[in-house]
Order: sequence, then C-alpha cells, then structure tokens
Amino acid sequence: MNKPDSARRVYGGRQFDVVVEWWSDREREVVQHPGSAAIVAVDADGYVTLVRQLREPARGRLIELPAGTLEAGEEPLACARRELEEEVGLTGGRWSELGAFYTTPGFCNERMHVFLAEVVERGDPHPESDEDVEVVRWHVDELKRRIGELEDGKTIAGLLLYLEGRT
Amino acid sequence: MNKPDSARRVYGGRQFDVVVEWWSDREREVVQHPGSAAIVAVDADGYVTLVRQLREPARGRLIELPAGTLEAGEEPLACARRELEEEVGLTGGRWSELGAFYTTPGFCNERMHVFLAEVVERGDPHPESDEDVEVVRWHVDELKRRIGELEDGKTIAGLLLYLEGRT
Repeated sequence: MNKPDSARRVYGGRQFDVVVEWWSDREREVVQHPGSAAIVAVDADGYVTLVRQLREPARGRLIELPAGTLEAGEEPLACARRELEEEVGLTGGRWSELGAFYTTPGFCNERMHVFLAEVVERGDPHPESDEDVEVVRWHVDELKRRIGELEDGKTIAGLLLYLEGRT
Repeated sequence: MNKPDSARRVYGGRQFDVVVEWWSDREREVVQHPGSAAIVAVDADGYVTLVRQLREPARGRLIELPAGTLEAGEEPLACARRELEEEVGLTGGRWSELGAFYTTPGFCNERMHVFLAEVVERGDPHPESDEDVEVVRWHVDELKRRIGELEDGKTIAGLLLYLEGRT
C-alpha cells in the first residue's frame, strides 16, 4: 500500500523534481523535495529570532522562522544547526524537537522538522550570496498577539507549538 | 519588485504547473497552485471533524482538517463550504476565518485559508470517487494533548489557531 506500482520523473529542477506515480488505478503527481528544518531560537533575553525575506512565489516579503533544506544525507538537526548559524549567526543553545509535519501532503513529500533552540548565543551570520535576509526579533511575550501578522505556515505552526509547550 | 521580469512554464500537470521565473539576476522555480481552504468544523457537542486518508506523497494515512483546492474563480469561503459538505457531510454553522498562510513560500504559491465553522450540522457526505476518506472526530477538550499525533502542517496550524482563539 505504501509504495507506488511505478513512477516516472517528468520534471527535474534545481530545488525539486516532479514525479508521476501510479498507485493501482490512480495517478499522482508528486513534487519531490529533500525535506527541511526550521528553528524557534530563543536567546537568554527571551527574544525569538525571525527573518524577513522576499519570497518570490508569494510576491512579497514574509516573516519566517530561520529554515533551510536538507542537504544530501544530512540529518534534520544538523541542517537546523547549520542554517541557524549561517542565516542569523546563532550558535549553542539547548535543542529539542517541537514537531515534524508534511507541509503539503496532497502533492509534495516535503517533511518539515521544527526544532526549539533555547538560550542561543548571538554571533555573525554568513548567508549565501543570493539571500537578502533581514533579522527580526520578537519577544516571547509578544508572540501570541503577533501571530496574526504571519503569512507562513511553518512559522505559525512552529511558534504555536512552542507557545503550547510553555503553558 | 513584486513581479518577475519573465516566466516560462516548464511543466503542466493535473494538480499544478511548474513555472521558471527570472527576477533580475535570480532564477526561481515555482509550483503554481490555485490555493486551498481548510476547515476547523465544530459541532454542537464540541467535536471537531477530521479526515484520515492515504496521502501518497507521505506514503501513509494522515489525519487532517477537511480541505480542498479552489476551483477556477472560486472564493476561499465558498470552497470551504463546498468541501466540508462533500467530504464529510457537514452543513450550516457560524463561519469565520482563523488565518491564511503560504504552505511553502520558498517554492510554491499555494495560499491556504483556514476557516472556523461552529455549530455545524451532520449530514451525508458525498466524496469524489477517488477519495477514500475515513471520518475521525476529536472532542475539543482532547485537541491539545493529541496535537502530537498530527503530521500535517495545515492541521497543526489550524487547530492551534483555533485553540489560541478560545483562551
């Protein structure tokens, strides 16, 4: 039940491929994605570090958790630590997993792992050259009333999972 | 800033297309999706109706909010009402919007609208023929401790947005 009878790659891209799978009498188009990790990173002063960046598919700048795509063979936690340091310069901290979920299980196999990193330490980010990322810091006490400003699914889910765990 | 200089469709599918866009010196691959609606539907007895179905990209059965893809020209609320009745046979109710977000803004333009429908009435579902959907009902009082069983992003976000709004 959990594997297709056959599959054919119909598009090969830089970020993802598209595969058409046959499951007995059903045809399914699947965006093949390596998976991702995102981080709710809280520093000793109680600030959560977020990033604001242009998301071309959304036609605008979104505020999001720091996040990135798994590299080949990379574990989600290793990806999360790497992205957090590269993107926003945060290191150290006490790490735990808040949850993991499929972002769009109807047509894509991307699985997103969301980690909590507490008492992280600030340093210098070193983002990839094509990333224009602005760092935004929200205090834990203002998260709940600012959730409505967010337009990114993993960020809403991740911050609410974090808030749920604190109550 | 908010439009590409040029775009070319590189894959045309049944559920989505893939377009390569050029933004000055950057190339972006975008899964073009019409958008979606999902519903936190609560009946008079305090039960939230969920669906468990095979999600081929996830290689297993997931528990999710009732949801569906916008048809051409369809408003999100109209889509939500249609899907709720078709998929799980629920009608009526007091409707409001819990939130809207991009599911995967890094590579896809899908915008998901999540609605709350309170005091819905039970009827007979009439799902599309290729949907094998099992109805699951969780009481509002057990939602918080069962969030960890969920593996679908919109469902985690939607139920937590609902719980946040009640406190």
